[in-house]
Amino acid sequence: MTFHINRRKFLKSSLLAVPAISVSSTGEALARYEQEVIGVSKWELETPALCVDLDALDFNLKEIHQRLKKTGIAVRPHAKTHKCPAIAHMQMKAGAIGICTAKLSESEVMLENGLSQVLMTSVNISPSKIKKAMMLSKRFPGFIQAADHSENVKDLQDAAQALGIIADVAVDIDVIRRSGVLPGKPALALAQMVDAAPNLRFKGILAYDGAVQHVHGYDARKARAIRSFEPVVETFEMMKASGLNMEIFSGGGTGTYDMMHEFPGFTDVQAGSYLFMDCQYIDIGGKENDMVFDDFKSSLTVLTTIVNANHAGRLVTDGGAKAMTLNRPTGRVIGESGFTYNASSDEYGSISFEESAKSYRVGDILEVIVPHCDPVINLYDHMYGIRNEKVEMILPILARGKSQ
Amino acid sequence: MTFHINRRKFLKSSLLAVPAISVSSTGEALARYEQEVIGVSKWELETPALCVDLDALDFNLKEIHQRLKKTGIAVRPHAKTHKCPAIAHMQMKAGAIGICTAKLSESEVMLENGLSQVLMTSVNISPSKIKKAMMLSKRFPGFIQAADHSENVKDLQDAAQALGIIADVAVDIDVIRRSGVLPGKPALALAQMVDAAPNLRFKGILAYDGAVQHVHGYDARKARAIRSFEPVVETFEMMKASGLNMEIFSGGGTGTYDMMHEFPGFTDVQAGSYLFMDCQYIDIGGKENDMVFDDFKSSLTVLTTIVNANHAGRLVTDGGAKAMTLNRPTGRVIGESGFTYNASSDEYGSISFEESAKSYRVGDILEVIVPHCDPVINLYDHMYGIRNEKVEMILPILARGKSQ
Repeated sequence: MTFHINRRKFLKSSLLAVPAISVSSTGEALARYEQEVIGVSKWELETPALCVDLDALDFNLKEIHQRLKKTGIAVRPHAKTHKCPAIAHMQMKAGAIGICTAKLSESEVMLENGLSQVLMTSVNISPSKIKKAMMLSKRFPGFIQAADHSENVKDLQDAAQALGIIADVAVDIDVIRRSGVLPGKPALALAQMVDAAPNLRFKGILAYDGAVQHVHGYDARKARAIRSFEPVVETFEMMKASGLNMEIFSGGGTGTYDMMHEFPGFTDVQAGSYLFMDCQYIDIGGKENDMVFDDFKSSLTVLTTIVNANHAGRLVTDGGAKAMTLNRPTGRVIGESGFTYNASSDEYGSISFEESAKSYRVGDILEVIVPHCDPVINLYDHMYGIRNEKVEMILPILARGKSQ
Repeated sequence: MTFHINRRKFLKSSLLAVPAISVSSTGEALARYEQEVIGVSKWELETPALCVDLDALDFNLKEIHQRLKKTGIAVRPHAKTHKCPAIAHMQMKAGAIGICTAKLSESEVMLENGLSQVLMTSVNISPSKIKKAMMLSKRFPGFIQAADHSENVKDLQDAAQALGIIADVAVDIDVIRRSGVLPGKPALALAQMVDAAPNLRFKGILAYDGAVQHVHGYDARKARAIRSFEPVVETFEMMKASGLNMEIFSGGGTGTYDMMHEFPGFTDVQAGSYLFMDCQYIDIGGKENDMVFDDFKSSLTVLTTIVNANHAGRLVTDGGAKAMTLNRPTGRVIGESGFTYNASSDEYGSISFEESAKSYRVGDILEVIVPHCDPVINLYDHMYGIRNEKVEMILPILARGKSQ
């Protein structure tokens, strides 16, 4: 923190203050802010500040392709994790075959911002969303929609016909009793229904096993992944045998990205968190290191300022639930192994500790690895892209809050 | 849901779809959207949709003043709850003496949007925030800053002097080992330091007992409030005896709003949640009804669509942690007493139940009382103001994400 040196001088000067506190995520205000903040030390940013280390990000962007090269498995990263078109473009440049999205409004932001290959992994149900989705299909032929229900397929067909298009559809298979059609015959019948619909084009299947991603230990995770994916693989084989177009068999995540090639016909992994490696993923262990999942590097942190240090063994910060979420494990303070970060207050974080590596005072800034990347990113208008501790770029989170 | 009747017709028509999915929170896009959505049935909104019932809101806006009339206690509502200048203006019109804010960027949004009386209840620590806060004080003389540390008072004095202003400062007193200076002599010394600073004006004290607000049962809550506020009251008396200006003695929340008049010198309550009455507050019980805290009406809900109903005793919705947060108790589905709403997935909600009052199918919309209003509101760009089940207004949450 170089600021401390000139702190008094700065405060006593009549200099205009540094950039505005409240910055819009788009438009002129952001462009002005960008001009002012590029090159600034990350330790001088207003906190809480969401930062991504660009060296670590660059490493992760390449590493997943490097590690999957021999498997023949492609990467279709899930953009629900970052909600940031600029990062999605980095993923495409690194070799992704397209991106995934979770919501229609999120898909719209990605398509409107130049991402041409978008697989939306959830279904659209309301008539107006179905219609809007079909309008996106018309404007952006690389948009693929999920379906998991016969009523839904009828709706999609009607809407596609009304717009005079042939829309791409993938069938979502139920793995964890959340989304999807039941595997086996129900899935086959639904796929055949899509295939037979004159205005829909059946592209294949997707299946996401959300429950296996955070199982601790590579072997335990793999055993469970194989068990729970077995009905999906059988379904794939049935569909293939019936002559359906199976060009997409998509699924998996950061926790299983290096296992999915074991499944015949599987085409691409929907990993998202590999870019950031939050506390939830660090702990699960990898193939080479069973204690720490270190295939990728932790890149995403929140900078937070100590605002109170009146009590022994306790530090209060400006990063509470609105900056960190309530996810567990809670944030990890870089450089301190004995800190417990409690973000259960909306506006304040509270750290408790018995021993610390350094002594701290009010005004010191802590860097915290985020608990779970997706919902934390969804709290911020932009990330600061950091290299060598300086701001190199602003990454607007344009799909932030797009949960519809 | 009138939509079901014309569903097929709508889908088969080549009509343009209803408004854009992704709407900016400000500017022309919002104005266009507003034109299109006013008068629409709430059951036709894209989900997840954050709705506030305007009849209930109007009731709550007035009721707190009605109930406090005889006590002489004023209301200075905490805007961190709603982050919405339009609602803050409603509060002022209903009789509030000003509003509170938690963060500098939030204060800026409120001041810039015509709220002239703003008490920021947290401290600003970084030199740049202090400077920006002082610039706000210069532009908006009704802005009052909190201080809780002697170094901070020196910084505030330097920055105020540099700008040639006399800035209003209130001293925050520590109640729950979170923010604030220790009560008693340390607080007195700090208040005297502010009072003696040539460019600062001491306005009084604030103290927030965040731990007592959700204690179940009125009597238990009151007993604890009195115990934990005792040192604050002593501090107030010491300051008053020393001749300090004690025009502000602010604190309390929705859980204690009707107890604070018991404390001598207390001036105003910082209630926020009374407007919305989330699940966390409903459960604590009130003075008249020990089971349900029903002084105010529940007004804030999220509309969410059932997207999957394949499994008995289970409904999956499009409202997960990004729409509801992980707060507990979890959301309550209106009309169903036996539903457990699990929002632990980022994108999906899962309801489990043994019995239901109605039968449900994919596409049905559920209305859910939010777990905890503040962080849920912070996930959305706007609330829909609903009256008689129709959209009457859009309420942009302009300070959403302003955590700095």
